[in-house]
Amino acid sequence: MENRAHNFFAGPAALPLEVLKQAQAELLNFRGTGVSVMEISHRDKAFIAVTEEAEADLKKLLGLGDDYAVLFLGGGATHQFIMLPMNVLNEGDCADYVDSGNWAHRAYEEACIQADWAKAKANCIASTRELEKKYCVLPEVKQENMNPNAKYLHFCSNNTIYGTQFFEKNYPKPLPGVPLVADMSSGFMSHSFDATKFDMIYAGAQKNVGPAGVTVVVIKKSWAETFQKKGFQLPKTLDYKVQIEKGSMFNTPPCFNIYITGLVFKWMLEMGGLKAMEARNDKKQKMIYGAIDNSNGFYRGYVQNPEHRSWMNVTFNLPTPELEEEFVKSAKAQGMLGLKGYRTLGGIRASIYNSTTPESVETLVNFMESFRKAH
Amino acid sequence: MENRAHNFFAGPAALPLEVLKQAQAELLNFRGTGVSVMEISHRDKAFIAVTEEAEADLKKLLGLGDDYAVLFLGGGATHQFIMLPMNVLNEGDCADYVDSGNWAHRAYEEACIQADWAKAKANCIASTRELEKKYCVLPEVKQENMNPNAKYLHFCSNNTIYGTQFFEKNYPKPLPGVPLVADMSSGFMSHSFDATKFDMIYAGAQKNVGPAGVTVVVIKKSWAETFQKKGFQLPKTLDYKVQIEKGSMFNTPPCFNIYITGLVFKWMLEMGGLKAMEARNDKKQKMIYGAIDNSNGFYRGYVQNPEHRSWMNVTFNLPTPELEEEFVKSAKAQGMLGLKGYRTLGGIRASIYNSTTPESVETLVNFMESFRKAH
Repeated sequence: MENRAHNFFAGPAALPLEVLKQAQAELLNFRGTGVSVMEISHRDKAFIAVTEEAEADLKKLLGLGDDYAVLFLGGGATHQFIMLPMNVLNEGDCADYVDSGNWAHRAYEEACIQADWAKAKANCIASTRELEKKYCVLPEVKQENMNPNAKYLHFCSNNTIYGTQFFEKNYPKPLPGVPLVADMSSGFMSHSFDATKFDMIYAGAQKNVGPAGVTVVVIKKSWAETFQKKGFQLPKTLDYKVQIEKGSMFNTPPCFNIYITGLVFKWMLEMGGLKAMEARNDKKQKMIYGAIDNSNGFYRGYVQNPEHRSWMNVTFNLPTPELEEEFVKSAKAQGMLGLKGYRTLGGIRASIYNSTTPESVETLVNFMESFRKAH
Repeated sequence: MENRAHNFFAGPAALPLEVLKQAQAELLNFRGTGVSVMEISHRDKAFIAVTEEAEADLKKLLGLGDDYAVLFLGGGATHQFIMLPMNVLNEGDCADYVDSGNWAHRAYEEACIQADWAKAKANCIASTRELEKKYCVLPEVKQENMNPNAKYLHFCSNNTIYGTQFFEKNYPKPLPGVPLVADMSSGFMSHSFDATKFDMIYAGAQKNVGPAGVTVVVIKKSWAETFQKKGFQLPKTLDYKVQIEKGSMFNTPPCFNIYITGLVFKWMLEMGGLKAMEARNDKKQKMIYGAIDNSNGFYRGYVQNPEHRSWMNVTFNLPTPELEEEFVKSAKAQGMLGLKGYRTLGGIRASIYNSTTPESVETLVNFMESFRKAH
C-alpha cells in the first residue's frame, strides 16, 4: 500500500488514486513521446489531443453540444470574477448577483470594481451575509428583486466555507431572456443537472475535477458572440472571444493541470458520469450528516436546514474550541487530514468532494463516534 | 533506460530528469503527508514550506535580499503584460518599451490598451520589427530616445521566436531614476547577471524553470509600494500590492507548478547556480552555432551577428523548405523533438534551455553533420 491518508482538504483536495497512478506511470514518457507531458509544446499534436479529449469528455459528462465552448484558463476562478463583468458590462448596463457565501461575495465585489470602470452597476439581489450566523442558510432568490434588463444573473453553487449548496431544484431562476451564470467551483460535477440552462459555468479545478492552476469555463458561444466592449479594447487574454477563437491557446495554457483534469473527466465517465457521482456523494453526505444529527448535540451542524446543506463541505462544531482542536489533532494522528474549519469561521469542516472515497467518509464517521463516546 | 527523447521544444520545454524522477517518486505521497502535493491545501504548512523554499532558493540564485518579493502567479507572462501597466500607469503617465521580438511587441500592445484606459501612454523607443528580416538583430536602445519621466523601461530579454537575446553587457540602460523591468521568460536564469539592477523581472516558468501555468515575478518591494492607482480600484488578483501582502495566496495559486519550479531551483543550486548554467549554456550554443557556421552555407543562421544570437533558441534555415521538412521528420525519427520553427517564421528552431543536456545538443550536432553530408 502507499500509506495514503484520508483526504478532507477543502481544496486543493483529493484526486482519484487511479488518476494519480496513471500520471505517475507516464510522468517521464507521455504516450510514447519520450518526454513528460510537462515537457511538450502545447501546440504539438500529442498535447492538442489532451485538450480536445478533455473538452469532449466534459461535454459528454454535461450533455452539451457544439453550441458551447470549453476553455481551460489560468488565474483561478477569481479571474472569472473579473473577466465576466469586464467582457459583458458597458455604460448603463447592470448585472444581478446572489450573495450566498464568501466567494459569491468576492465575485460581487469584483463585479462592482469592473462596473465602476465601465460606468455600469452590479446589483446584490439576495444575501445572507448579515445574518447573525453568517451565510448559514441559502438566501431566497426572488424574481421580484431581479432586474429585467440585467445582462446576466450570477450565483455561486456551493459555499465552500460555510457549507451551503444550491441543487438543481433551488438554482436561481432568472427572468426570461436573462442569461444564467454560475461559479460552480466547489460544487462542479457533484450532481446531475441540466447544463443547457446556463449561458456560462466556471469552476476552479482544485475542488472536484483537478489540481489548482486551471479554471474550467463552459460558455455558450452564441452568448459570447454578443459581447461588445464599447470605447476601448479588452486585454487579449481576458477576452472570452479571443480565448474561444484560440481554443484557450492565445498564450501557453496550464498544460499539466489540463492533463490531470482530463484524466479526472475520464475517471468520472468510467464511474458512470454525473448520476453516479450524485449517488456516491449522496451516500457520503448521508453518512456524515447522520453522524452529526444522531450525536445528541455533541456535534452541531453549522447549517441546520437539510435542504441547504452542502454535500461537498460539511461544517460543524463540538461543545468547545478545545475539543475541536483535539478532534482535528487526533483525527490527523489517525490519518485524516484537512478537517480544520476555515480560518475565519473555526470549527470543523470535512470536505467530501467527488474523489473522496466512501471508505474515507466511513473512517471519519467511525472516528466521530468513538471521539464522542470518549468525551 | 526510460526511452527519453532529446527535447528541443520551445516551451513547454525540457525539465531536468532528476526533477521529474523526484516528482514521480513522491507523486502519491508528498514528504510523508500521505497525499499528493496536488491534493494538499495551499495553506497547509507542508505546502507553505514548498513556496517558502522556492522563494528562498530563487533569491539565493539571483543574489537578492529582503527588499525583493517573489510571486508565483497564474495566467502566464502575458498577464504581466497587463498587470504591469494596469498597476503603474495613471493619467498623464508614460512608460517606455523596447520592441525586439514577438513577445516584446505583445507586451507593448497590451501596455497601449492599458494606457488607453488610464489616459496614459506607452512609447515604443526602439524596434527591429519593420526590418525586411524581421527582428533578426537586436534594436539599438539609445538613451536619447528614452523619456526621462517614464514610469519604467520595459524589455524582453530573449526573443524565443526569432532567436536574439540581450545579455548583461547589452541590457538596456535606463535614464537615472527610471525603473528597469524585464520579461525574461525564455532567457530567465540562463546566465549570470546583476539582478539588483532591476525593479521587476518576470518569467513564464515553462521555458527555463518549470512547467507551464506559473509565472515567476520578482519585484522590488519599495517600488511596488509607490503604486497608487488613481480614480478606481484594481481587481484584487491583478494588484501587485495585494499579491505581495498575501504571498501569492490571495486566491489558490498553481500549487503543483510552483512545486516543480521549486525543484528546478534546487537542481540549479546543486548544479552550481547561474554561473554553472551560463557555462553549460555557452558550451551548448558554441556547439550548435559552430555546426551552422561551419556548414559551408548549408545551414544559415537567421541571426547573423554573434553578439545578438540567442543561447536559448537557435534559428536557422536549410537550402529549401522541403529539406527543412525532411530535417525535422528525420530528426524526430531519431528521437529529437520540437525542431520545427515557429509557425509564422518557418525554418528550424532548436531550443536549448538550461535543462537540455549537452549530450542532447551533441546528438543534434552530429545529426546536422550527417544530414548535411547526405544532401
